[in-house]
Amino acid sequence: MLIDTLTWRYATKKMDPAKAVPEEKLARILRAAQLAPTSSGIQPFEIFVVTNAETRAKLRAAAGGQSQLTDGSHVLVFAAWDNYTEARIDAVVDMMVAERGVPREMVAPYYENLKAAYLPRPANVNADHAARQAFLAFGMALAQAAEDEVDATPMEGFDPAQVDDILGLREKGLRSVTLMPLGYRAAEGDWLLGMKKVRKPLDELVTRID
Amino acid sequence: MLIDTLTWRYATKKMDPAKAVPEEKLARILRAAQLAPTSSGIQPFEIFVVTNAETRAKLRAAAGGQSQLTDGSHVLVFAAWDNYTEARIDAVVDMMVAERGVPREMVAPYYENLKAAYLPRPANVNADHAARQAFLAFGMALAQAAEDEVDATPMEGFDPAQVDDILGLREKGLRSVTLMPLGYRAAEGDWLLGMKKVRKPLDELVTRID
Repeated sequence: MLIDTLTWRYATKKMDPAKAVPEEKLARILRAAQLAPTSSGIQPFEIFVVTNAETRAKLRAAAGGQSQLTDGSHVLVFAAWDNYTEARIDAVVDMMVAERGVPREMVAPYYENLKAAYLPRPANVNADHAARQAFLAFGMALAQAAEDEVDATPMEGFDPAQVDDILGLREKGLRSVTLMPLGYRAAEGDWLLGMKKVRKPLDELVTRID
Repeated sequence: MLIDTLTWRYATKKMDPAKAVPEEKLARILRAAQLAPTSSGIQPFEIFVVTNAETRAKLRAAAGGQSQLTDGSHVLVFAAWDNYTEARIDAVVDMMVAERGVPREMVAPYYENLKAAYLPRPANVNADHAARQAFLAFGMALAQAAEDEVDATPMEGFDPAQVDDILGLREKGLRSVTLMPLGYRAAEGDWLLGMKKVRKPLDELVTRID
């Protein structure tokens, strides 16, 4: 069950540089992110899969030297749209019409309303909205990794401007929002591995209104 | 596998008011949200589980009349912290120390750095950061629901100020960020059920840097 998978996983601090995640597992991890639901189906993010050693070394430098970024075999960079635009939303309509074989006039009015709501908003409001969708998909990728017994580290401790620069994201209208090195835990050297998983008790997290 | 679960699920548009989600399934859905990783382990959100008919009717009115909010058996409201505060972060340190049985001086410096970074930031920057964590956890809850064959609708189309008012969230330093009605799909009347699930192709979503 997912809750067992989530109990197994932890934010791996030390990865074994000798072990690589196989392509079929990587494919499932990406597929989970692709299948994640997003607001109005717009999927306002892209994923960069980095294995290149030089690029990973740069990412590590932009993330306070965190070793998983070079000791793991892959780094996933989730990059959200920096804004909503007419072209980006129209492309979603085109895809819906093509994939579902429905008339454009069945799909378009909903997205015209969406454009009327989104396009006048400040870019940062839209970028934050896009980032939330990316985080949900990031969680799905993380859960699929764990189910495949691939270790991963959700990582927000990095300089987004530097990462954007390393990957040329600004020119693509994207902003890095979170990183996920993938690999396998090292046999030793991970201070977190032996630690109890700590979560707020349910009675603090949840309020019932019955 | 999670990817099969995510293929099965869809944003249910019409729920059967005669069927209720059993408590043991609800418990697993909430457990998945509780287990979700969050930045620095701070879990900056709360979840309101609403079964009360009057409250659900108000939520429905605040969400453009979407019927799942009253036809389903439960509504989960994910509410993120409106800001980071010293007290909120200190409470995380207290919990880590108590649960892991480690000396405070092993845990505190990391969170002192976090406070130095977070507390001077504008409230909306911190609220957006908290909302991203809530979205990741929301995704986990959604996936656990699907694994348990519970239908759910991720829902952002609502007036957050109205929902905050209905649940008294502002006074608690919380802001509603997303809703999830839970229930079971109706036998008929769901326009989305027969539709193909549409996602951007992987070659548009993913860029390899090898």
